[in-house]
Amino acid sequence: MIIIGEKINGSIPSVAKAIEARDEAFIRDLAVRQAQYGATYIDICASTSPNVERDTLKWLMDIVQDAVDTPLSIDSSDPNTIVDVLPHAKKPGLINSASDEGGKCEIVFPIIAGTEWNCITLTCDNNGIPTAPDVKFKIARTIAEKAQKHGIAFDRIFMDPLVNSIATVPHAVTSFVEVTRNILDAFPGIHITSGLSNISFGMPIRKSINQTFLVLAMGAGMDSAIMDPTSLDIRTALYAAEMLLGIDEYCVEFLDAYREGIIGPPPKQ
Amino acid sequence: MIIIGEKINGSIPSVAKAIEARDEAFIRDLAVRQAQYGATYIDICASTSPNVERDTLKWLMDIVQDAVDTPLSIDSSDPNTIVDVLPHAKKPGLINSASDEGGKCEIVFPIIAGTEWNCITLTCDNNGIPTAPDVKFKIARTIAEKAQKHGIAFDRIFMDPLVNSIATVPHAVTSFVEVTRNILDAFPGIHITSGLSNISFGMPIRKSINQTFLVLAMGAGMDSAIMDPTSLDIRTALYAAEMLLGIDEYCVEFLDAYREGIIGPPPKQ
Repeated sequence: MIIIGEKINGSIPSVAKAIEARDEAFIRDLAVRQAQYGATYIDICASTSPNVERDTLKWLMDIVQDAVDTPLSIDSSDPNTIVDVLPHAKKPGLINSASDEGGKCEIVFPIIAGTEWNCITLTCDNNGIPTAPDVKFKIARTIAEKAQKHGIAFDRIFMDPLVNSIATVPHAVTSFVEVTRNILDAFPGIHITSGLSNISFGMPIRKSINQTFLVLAMGAGMDSAIMDPTSLDIRTALYAAEMLLGIDEYCVEFLDAYREGIIGPPPKQ
Repeated sequence: MIIIGEKINGSIPSVAKAIEARDEAFIRDLAVRQAQYGATYIDICASTSPNVERDTLKWLMDIVQDAVDTPLSIDSSDPNTIVDVLPHAKKPGLINSASDEGGKCEIVFPIIAGTEWNCITLTCDNNGIPTAPDVKFKIARTIAEKAQKHGIAFDRIFMDPLVNSIATVPHAVTSFVEVTRNILDAFPGIHITSGLSNISFGMPIRKSINQTFLVLAMGAGMDSAIMDPTSLDIRTALYAAEMLLGIDEYCVEFLDAYREGIIGPPPKQ
């Protein structure tokens, strides 16, 4: 699994406070702990007002890049902001995100075309976030064709089929599974990712719902998630699912993670 | 989900001790707690020597039938023993189990043909437990055809594709998923069940593995499990999976179970 660590996000009150106070140690700690627990990318999202977003992102990039070697996932709803701060990155990472809304692909794809940057793309457009799997798939196809036109290989695209909340869309997961399978069939090598917590919006015991969604989505072929790698329960479910799905053949990763205390309760002495 | 409560089993040391000491209160408590947490059937397995198995099963049946209204799952490796104690049951339940080994179907099916008894059937034969999904499916077909010959509808059969341990068979779950889908396609209305803990034999943190297997197997269409309904984590995963798979539409069961404290941590006051 490709884990995109979600904890450095200005929409989280404690992070907003740290950004406001320019508390480097707090951000640094979040970067180190996420890297330690297996984050493939560290997402940074300022969630500030537009006039300070670029400076805030650069400040976050400096701290994270100084603390860990893990590549960044640069997160903004404004693709121009992402493109502007890109040169500040020490190495290629992930762009979070483009979509078929407001010409976002047209801004991002030419910039990353000749580079090693990867890109999360959301299956939404100017009509908003669809719920029907065939509409999501149609948008995914449009985005994949735009990537292809710019010479961006499918394995650099992380398609996010934008799972709806189960509280409002009863078929949210069955739709996600359907569109995921269709995307994987149509665009060989493409990645599927998802913000795990979207599924449980408005529900109680969200962590249990997120964890169950993770396993079902991995069963459908999802190979990436925007998640909290520091959560023991989620991490354990992830390693168990990789093992049971035959991705971690002969249980090597699972048993190593268990011995190192990365998953499950520590072995009894 | 059809939950077969597995806790009254003489192969569990504390239960063996209670059987030996004829400790009615201990058995009664296991029956009440499993029923309270949603068991559809209460499994009883004596695991004693053959000469006392019938008497032990009848003793267990008396206690459970006095304690709860939940129907029994009568569990023995000897189909003749099951058939002999059947008249001791107050109402129809589940036979655990027949298979294509040693003429077990031929003993059980004629007896239950004109009744309302259901039957777990294992995909094994005189050659033992296969690992290849096509061999398992072939045995399932043989059993389903025998049931049909006796006028037993598919919805009275709980096919158990005998998941292998992930520690010894790397493709244990992918095979289980494949054979489950094939059985459901071929025999409309048939149930799929599984002893959840078999998957994790020989592994650490078994509960986490069992819970992840439950979710993946439900994703493939499994609608029953032989499990411990008193485990909060397993129960929470089960309710979450039913909700996410659209079986519990509009989250009604999940939210009710949450409010009643059946799943998840209790709501904060």
